[in-house]
Amino acid sequence: MNKNENILIIGVAGGTGSGKTTLASHIADAFGDRVAVITHDSYYRAQNDKTYEERCLQNYDHPDAFETELLCAHLEQLCQGQAVDIPVYDYTIHNRSNRTQRVEPRAVIVLEGILLFSDELLRSMMDLKIFVDTDADERILRRIVRDTKERGRSLESVITQYLTTVKPMHEAFVEPYKRFADIIVPGGGDNPAALDMIITRVKKQLGDV
Amino acid sequence: MNKNENILIIGVAGGTGSGKTTLASHIADAFGDRVAVITHDSYYRAQNDKTYEERCLQNYDHPDAFETELLCAHLEQLCQGQAVDIPVYDYTIHNRSNRTQRVEPRAVIVLEGILLFSDELLRSMMDLKIFVDTDADERILRRIVRDTKERGRSLESVITQYLTTVKPMHEAFVEPYKRFADIIVPGGGDNPAALDMIITRVKKQLGDV
Repeated sequence: MNKNENILIIGVAGGTGSGKTTLASHIADAFGDRVAVITHDSYYRAQNDKTYEERCLQNYDHPDAFETELLCAHLEQLCQGQAVDIPVYDYTIHNRSNRTQRVEPRAVIVLEGILLFSDELLRSMMDLKIFVDTDADERILRRIVRDTKERGRSLESVITQYLTTVKPMHEAFVEPYKRFADIIVPGGGDNPAALDMIITRVKKQLGDV
Repeated sequence: MNKNENILIIGVAGGTGSGKTTLASHIADAFGDRVAVITHDSYYRAQNDKTYEERCLQNYDHPDAFETELLCAHLEQLCQGQAVDIPVYDYTIHNRSNRTQRVEPRAVIVLEGILLFSDELLRSMMDLKIFVDTDADERILRRIVRDTKERGRSLESVITQYLTTVKPMHEAFVEPYKRFADIIVPGGGDNPAALDMIITRVKKQLGDV
């Protein structure tokens, strides 16, 4: 692709419960709608050819679960100044909904997702790759709280999913790609000194400093 | 201490051969004498009470080998706008020389050293803690080249020192303190995107952006 130097694409990756969404939110909060935030999860593949039961059995922590090629095409369009309609995923049916969400071109695009760095083309499109690195025990604790309190899941189901897919996929497709990060932010998304640097970098892009 | 908000103290730590000196040099090169660079190694303890043979047997990779309390006192003085005379270490005699080097107060102070983050007081004085993280195999290769080509040492002596003190001290006093870093820079000191962020942060401090 022809990269547009006027647009800064920041990728924020990290394991489940690492704090990457928190970090991405801090960036978004600092700049409002001058920054577009896109989550990789929006690009979970449409699975209209599968039954609900089949969809329940899919491995959603593997890179193949994502239509990353569509995300790359959308980034290319945004870099060319065109708005895009990104898919809206419906977790209740494990399938893409019929709705889309319009994202306008912005000078700064923040991508957020666990598996962002495992795709070579996507990696090449990012100007700044940030990996939020948090210990595995803290990450699973956050996931347990989130999934049992906010998503109504049982502790047993969280543990089973973690051990059968989340952890093995983390070891295969998240941890090995940490080395492609430009910077690693330890200890989660609430790291003031790191956030200050990232915000300053974005301000430079936006001409605010 | 009373921190001076007009002064930014950046600590650059990382194992032997990690590229921390390279990173610190890139920062210094970008700003010339507007930035003061201080290496922890300058604060190796004076050992006038020991014979040369005794000094040869010291463990120079342990935090106790450094007069870190003097470094902290000097930082405090610099923050109060006072110049300091830092020790000059003479590696040929394994002892502090009689000379000193004057360092004038600057708006940005870059500290560089393997063990910077293992001292709690020193850690508390830094505004931005950067850990340069490079794989152990690449680090030992760089150290071998440096010590055999630039310092005239035999391969055997480099290997012996690495296995007997450098590596155990790294595991005890470097790696565990990585978690105190604000950002981790993977893959050495030549990381353009990370360097760009750090330079931009320094420019903000200096009012250049």
